[in-house]
Amino acid sequence: MNKIQELFSQPLRPINLGLETFAASMAAQGMEVATVEWQPPADGYVELDTLQGVDVDAANVEAVQRIMAGRPMLIGMGIAREVIPGFHPRLITHSGPPVTWQRMSGPTRGAVIGALLYEGLAETPEAAAELAASGAIEFAPCHHFNAVGPMAGIISPSMPVFIVRNEATGHLAYATQNEGLGRVLRYGAYGPEVIQRLRWMETVLYPALQRALEQTGPIDLRSMTAQALHMGDECHNRNKAGTSLFIRAIGPALAETSDAATAAAALRFMDGNDHFYLNLSMPAIKAMLLPAEQIPGCTVVTVMARNGTDWGIRVSATGDRWFTAPSPLVEGLWLPGYKPEDANPDIGDSAITETGGIGGFALAGAPAIVQFVGGTPTDAVNTTLAMYEITAGEHSAFSIPPLNFRGTPVGVDVRRVVETGITPRLNTGIAHKEPGVGMVGAGLVAAPMGCFRAAFEALKAL
Amino acid sequence: MNKIQELFSQPLRPINLGLETFAASMAAQGMEVATVEWQPPADGYVELDTLQGVDVDAANVEAVQRIMAGRPMLIGMGIAREVIPGFHPRLITHSGPPVTWQRMSGPTRGAVIGALLYEGLAETPEAAAELAASGAIEFAPCHHFNAVGPMAGIISPSMPVFIVRNEATGHLAYATQNEGLGRVLRYGAYGPEVIQRLRWMETVLYPALQRALEQTGPIDLRSMTAQALHMGDECHNRNKAGTSLFIRAIGPALAETSDAATAAAALRFMDGNDHFYLNLSMPAIKAMLLPAEQIPGCTVVTVMARNGTDWGIRVSATGDRWFTAPSPLVEGLWLPGYKPEDANPDIGDSAITETGGIGGFALAGAPAIVQFVGGTPTDAVNTTLAMYEITAGEHSAFSIPPLNFRGTPVGVDVRRVVETGITPRLNTGIAHKEPGVGMVGAGLVAAPMGCFRAAFEALKAL
Repeated sequence: MNKIQELFSQPLRPINLGLETFAASMAAQGMEVATVEWQPPADGYVELDTLQGVDVDAANVEAVQRIMAGRPMLIGMGIAREVIPGFHPRLITHSGPPVTWQRMSGPTRGAVIGALLYEGLAETPEAAAELAASGAIEFAPCHHFNAVGPMAGIISPSMPVFIVRNEATGHLAYATQNEGLGRVLRYGAYGPEVIQRLRWMETVLYPALQRALEQTGPIDLRSMTAQALHMGDECHNRNKAGTSLFIRAIGPALAETSDAATAAAALRFMDGNDHFYLNLSMPAIKAMLLPAEQIPGCTVVTVMARNGTDWGIRVSATGDRWFTAPSPLVEGLWLPGYKPEDANPDIGDSAITETGGIGGFALAGAPAIVQFVGGTPTDAVNTTLAMYEITAGEHSAFSIPPLNFRGTPVGVDVRRVVETGITPRLNTGIAHKEPGVGMVGAGLVAAPMGCFRAAFEALKAL
Repeated sequence: MNKIQELFSQPLRPINLGLETFAASMAAQGMEVATVEWQPPADGYVELDTLQGVDVDAANVEAVQRIMAGRPMLIGMGIAREVIPGFHPRLITHSGPPVTWQRMSGPTRGAVIGALLYEGLAETPEAAAELAASGAIEFAPCHHFNAVGPMAGIISPSMPVFIVRNEATGHLAYATQNEGLGRVLRYGAYGPEVIQRLRWMETVLYPALQRALEQTGPIDLRSMTAQALHMGDECHNRNKAGTSLFIRAIGPALAETSDAATAAAALRFMDGNDHFYLNLSMPAIKAMLLPAEQIPGCTVVTVMARNGTDWGIRVSATGDRWFTAPSPLVEGLWLPGYKPEDANPDIGDSAITETGGIGGFALAGAPAIVQFVGGTPTDAVNTTLAMYEITAGEHSAFSIPPLNFRGTPVGVDVRRVVETGITPRLNTGIAHKEPGVGMVGAGLVAAPMGCFRAAFEALKAL
């Protein structure tokens, strides 16, 4: 028997060097794997072990622990200008990092036009565009108000918002109600049916939900998200289970606190929109991430957001600074009649879900998502496994059944992104690039490396 | 380079002999596998290619196609004695094959006692047991009335039942409303709280659901089950998604057709019972299986059911005949305070789900189920893969996302069970062996080979 024959005649005990995914794959097949931590020297990579006199690994562990300890509760609703501190009648907030009207993407412009029509600040789309360009309206990122908005992410003064409170720390976060898919404001549409729906959401849906919430008391969104993750959602582009669980939680109180027609209309609207829960999972995760901001020496990403022009991140140790790069196009599936050339670059605050360890990071637990965003169930598993390479922890509250209930990857470490060349993977909706059209598809995208490199340089210079 | 080195220095192209699961496992890892159909000669196995002058494979394909073509719709509700043909005031139906009071398991006896108290036919448990033993009550399997009941499966004359109609064929199937877990009739409990709940379900829940169903019109249970299978349910012991989807479907009409308190109470009851959908998935699958009965030459199993004493099956070509074997114990997880010695052997008509290609057969799509019934997510995948070895088809309506949307294994072929020695795998609740106690756990069980051997002998003798 030669050496090779000898080798293969006995049980194999592989040693895995470096990338954890290989070991996980072998372990999944029942092999006993020894893992050696090893990384190839990255081109241009400089070690960053201490920062601001602090051990970076320890600071990052602290960030992840603060995130995981969050208890986001839906405590009520209110009108944006009345409940969001600092909001004012001439303010419109948008997704992503700051952007001027001049640089604004088509869908964001379309949504701003729609919001101005909805607010009664303009009579026609043309007048709205003129007003928006005049400087009389202040534009700012939702994130500057601890709010989050999917796609264009527009919040205007009269819009009702969910109020989510992190009971562990008291942090508050906000998001509007989800309108559904297709021709909707957040995808840049602003036709009469869009404005009419927004008015109904303000005058019928919001009061009904608010009355019901007063009866139910705070609803635990961490628990609901954790359950949804065990029901095939990743709580970014698949929210069918989360929406179902929210309807179950609010349904009895809705029936008791609204007249029959209103309760039925509210239930029917939510039943008709499998994405309703997105606008609850987003502020829940935002509320969990807020306590991780501004930790000295911490290289964990606290915000990832896109305005359709720029892709931006914020990092714990660098506080409020945005690091941006041009927003990439999304690869995906197209609604009938649309094609890749119609697509606006990646847009929306919904990347907050990935920032907090769900969404694309939890894709392995949501194999059916590929019917909406493309790819295969195997790609979905591989996406999650890759994210373990760039994150500082595994979530204690969110887990993935097919990976034997492994915690989701959480806490993107800028150092590991730069070091491995792997950027965060998101799945997302796709808006038409022209104002006024709406949704054209959904797909998968990798964050651009540029913002992580910029953040890394800034961290080194601290 | 020697031969072994040569072999391993080039891409491997494995050839798989026999068991399909090995090939599937390699294919899942992206290998190109050539499959050769081959089976070891089974001890005592006699080929059975034609039966009653018919090609058995063709007859089995016909059975599977009839099953998959079924369109089970929830068309309404009614009181058992009024809507189930042949039901009468002195009849009580139970799960599984026929059994006398003398041979009845503890939980079935307990549930019969509870049903007699609920019907007002006895004042005390002792008087009920005496009446049951007197011969004045007729006992019969639910299946003899195209009904199905989980666990003890008791249907008594006054109980409300769901009515499911297979729109493809007109077949009707029936099941009671699910009571929840713990101390409930179907697990053999008969205390005052059990009877009180049954009365509320008859006088409040049933009329409310019936009114709502009249407004919604028929509800498509095949579509709802297919969706639930993509949301982590296997629709036997995990029905959290199905229950959620049913609440979504019925909620608006409930709010519109009941007073606020009743609508809220009905929604709250269903929200409090993640198993509510089981009593809809069961008659849906029963209605789909009925057209596959009594096909000449067909060796597909049309009923698997247990009464807690015997495990029984019916096969298409042998029509109404039951083939039975002693019911085995279930391996599982135990509710606090209970242990394996407390368990009654396997019981219930809920094995209809596996008979129709879901439940244990769809376990690969429901990894979170292991938190309820034990095992690991890998076991869950392997269970489904093993079931492809004994089934005649892959379901066109029900699919498993993590297996790249492969259809669930459907149509147990008695020949393949006898040939491979693999019997159907179920997951199931566990009842206390004494009457009057209730649920003690949940777990996994393999059907006993005895009934399949008996059926095989009978088929050969046709």
